[in-house]
Amino acid sequence: MNNRMSDQVNDQKYMQEALSLAQKGKGFTSPNPAVGAVVVKNNNIVGKGWHKGAGLAHAEVEAINDAGVDAEQSTLYVTLEPCNHHGKTPPCTEKIINAGISRVVIGCKDPNPNVSGNGILRLQENKINVDINILKKEAEILIEDFAWYTCNDKKPFVTLKCASTIDGRIATSIGDSKWITNEKSREHVHKLRHENDAILIGAGTLKADNPSLTARINNFDSKDPARIILDPYLSVDRAAKVLTQESNAPTILVTSKDASTSKKESLKKTGVTIIEVPLENEKFNLAFLLHEVGQMDIVSLLVEGGSNVINSFLKEKLVNKALFFIAPKIYGGSDGIPICSGTGPKLMKEAINLVNINVSRFEEDTLIQGYIKQDED
Amino acid sequence: MNNRMSDQVNDQKYMQEALSLAQKGKGFTSPNPAVGAVVVKNNNIVGKGWHKGAGLAHAEVEAINDAGVDAEQSTLYVTLEPCNHHGKTPPCTEKIINAGISRVVIGCKDPNPNVSGNGILRLQENKINVDINILKKEAEILIEDFAWYTCNDKKPFVTLKCASTIDGRIATSIGDSKWITNEKSREHVHKLRHENDAILIGAGTLKADNPSLTARINNFDSKDPARIILDPYLSVDRAAKVLTQESNAPTILVTSKDASTSKKESLKKTGVTIIEVPLENEKFNLAFLLHEVGQMDIVSLLVEGGSNVINSFLKEKLVNKALFFIAPKIYGGSDGIPICSGTGPKLMKEAINLVNINVSRFEEDTLIQGYIKQDED
Repeated sequence: MNNRMSDQVNDQKYMQEALSLAQKGKGFTSPNPAVGAVVVKNNNIVGKGWHKGAGLAHAEVEAINDAGVDAEQSTLYVTLEPCNHHGKTPPCTEKIINAGISRVVIGCKDPNPNVSGNGILRLQENKINVDINILKKEAEILIEDFAWYTCNDKKPFVTLKCASTIDGRIATSIGDSKWITNEKSREHVHKLRHENDAILIGAGTLKADNPSLTARINNFDSKDPARIILDPYLSVDRAAKVLTQESNAPTILVTSKDASTSKKESLKKTGVTIIEVPLENEKFNLAFLLHEVGQMDIVSLLVEGGSNVINSFLKEKLVNKALFFIAPKIYGGSDGIPICSGTGPKLMKEAINLVNINVSRFEEDTLIQGYIKQDED
Repeated sequence: MNNRMSDQVNDQKYMQEALSLAQKGKGFTSPNPAVGAVVVKNNNIVGKGWHKGAGLAHAEVEAINDAGVDAEQSTLYVTLEPCNHHGKTPPCTEKIINAGISRVVIGCKDPNPNVSGNGILRLQENKINVDINILKKEAEILIEDFAWYTCNDKKPFVTLKCASTIDGRIATSIGDSKWITNEKSREHVHKLRHENDAILIGAGTLKADNPSLTARINNFDSKDPARIILDPYLSVDRAAKVLTQESNAPTILVTSKDASTSKKESLKKTGVTIIEVPLENEKFNLAFLLHEVGQMDIVSLLVEGGSNVINSFLKEKLVNKALFFIAPKIYGGSDGIPICSGTGPKLMKEAINLVNINVSRFEEDTLIQGYIKQDED
């Protein structure tokens, strides 16, 4: 291996470490992105850091502080371009320059077109060597929700999650769905809930399953997502877990002007947030809803169903990413609840395409995930 | 690596070679199993063979003939226990003994309980060292259809094949299904057709798709499967490809006593085989049908649809293996044709379970395959 190749391998190795550190913050940093950083000197990691939450130190600052005097003449690996502006904390570029760092290796540039490249420029003006796009794809995926939100006027990044039999049923004809997928798959769903700022379901699913919609991960102090329930006429059962359980995350009921005012008032008193969204042909204007929750700093939204909700989000082209957990079971009938309700296209070539497919296994369950092809793609 | 480990690695390497040779015969050998063999002397392969078709030489004979005088004091690797009886050809054990082979390594024993172990015993009685169960699982999968047929009174091994969107639709509401899966997936289906003795569809699918049901594989002289069409009232279009195309394989129309006699007679004149099977509540007695086609030396049957046919085979518990090709597409409605029609169970725990799941990729398509849990499992 020549020197150049060896440098590349090392850069990737340290960037991978920075990505792993960033992952620890995932779910806690919103509306900021998850970021990780390592300081390397003489081929040794001398400092590590990751962003732990909005208002707290950025990953670069954590790593440089961890390195102490070793930061002088070292290389900093950071998953995202360091900021060059005063936000809740001073600019990271200043910290890097003052610490005497001689080289900065960056996973990906800041996705915000208004500031992208500014941090790099400031470092270069201060005679710091900068390399960018090391493990770029991984670095971009890590902040895909933040990047989308930032570049799309605070529209949340929407992930669809669905668990079905191999013949596409999410429940039997009487609504039984316990359990389709195995424990490992369900654990992964709890990780998704932790990583998303909010989770959304329809009133039908709430009624059928009475889910808690919390994130429960073994040996990990996870964060609950906000719970958003589409409930046009506030039919929610007052004893539903989402209203009664202990959780630091809010429950948000999405309802219409037509819902009873007294119900709204009495629900508000239980601590629930109520959002009114226009109904059109008995369906919520979901773009309006996304705008509203985006203003509430909800960067990422996990849509869990049921069939009507999934269909509505897909039809309105509001889904970014979709995860399908497929259990090794055949329901064996057309009377079970399908993944999508409503009317599909006449021709198969008009079906919705997923791209960048990734297939993984959770024991005997299969997870197929991909991105909805956006119109501008 | 010690000697014993090195021997094991070598045994597996040569058995893998024998399995690869056997695979070349797959699709051509019915009602015999596909078998491969290599002769190894001084750690060199000196002879190769595989069974090329019923009535032709067995794999062991081919390999020993290929080795010539080198067979003396060599090791024979064979995927299946050598036969010890006179069939269309003399017993392979005799050939092995006469060739002076000193050791025989066997993938798996003969599945037929009446003869299983006889070949091994005969070899051992003649002072030949015998090792069995080398890459046993692979060797058993290679002949799973033959083993099932042999041990179940000539009942064909039934494989279900289905191509759907990720939300479980095999066609749109108007029956359009061209194409759900990609070219690589469809190529694999042609390989399946080649490897199966017969392929079965319902009259509805014949009408909707007018498929040729032949095996077409690039740069490979494949074998067409017999084509079996479930057509209770002989509604088949006389211009259908299955009736008019050139193919060495027969087309078999499965019909009822109630179908018009004149239609039966006139169809027979076109070269079609007609089988009468009892109808019960408008559905064929499929166990009866399987018995009939089993008697015709059809060891393996590929069921390709549509929804009603799939549902009937599953309900009657006649499916051994199932392959689901899943395209990265969301149909996005409940009006498309589902994988299974009919009525499913009330509770999800009563769904049909697949075991020994294998997941593979054909570019962006995913293939999930498994075995239907049999009652005796």
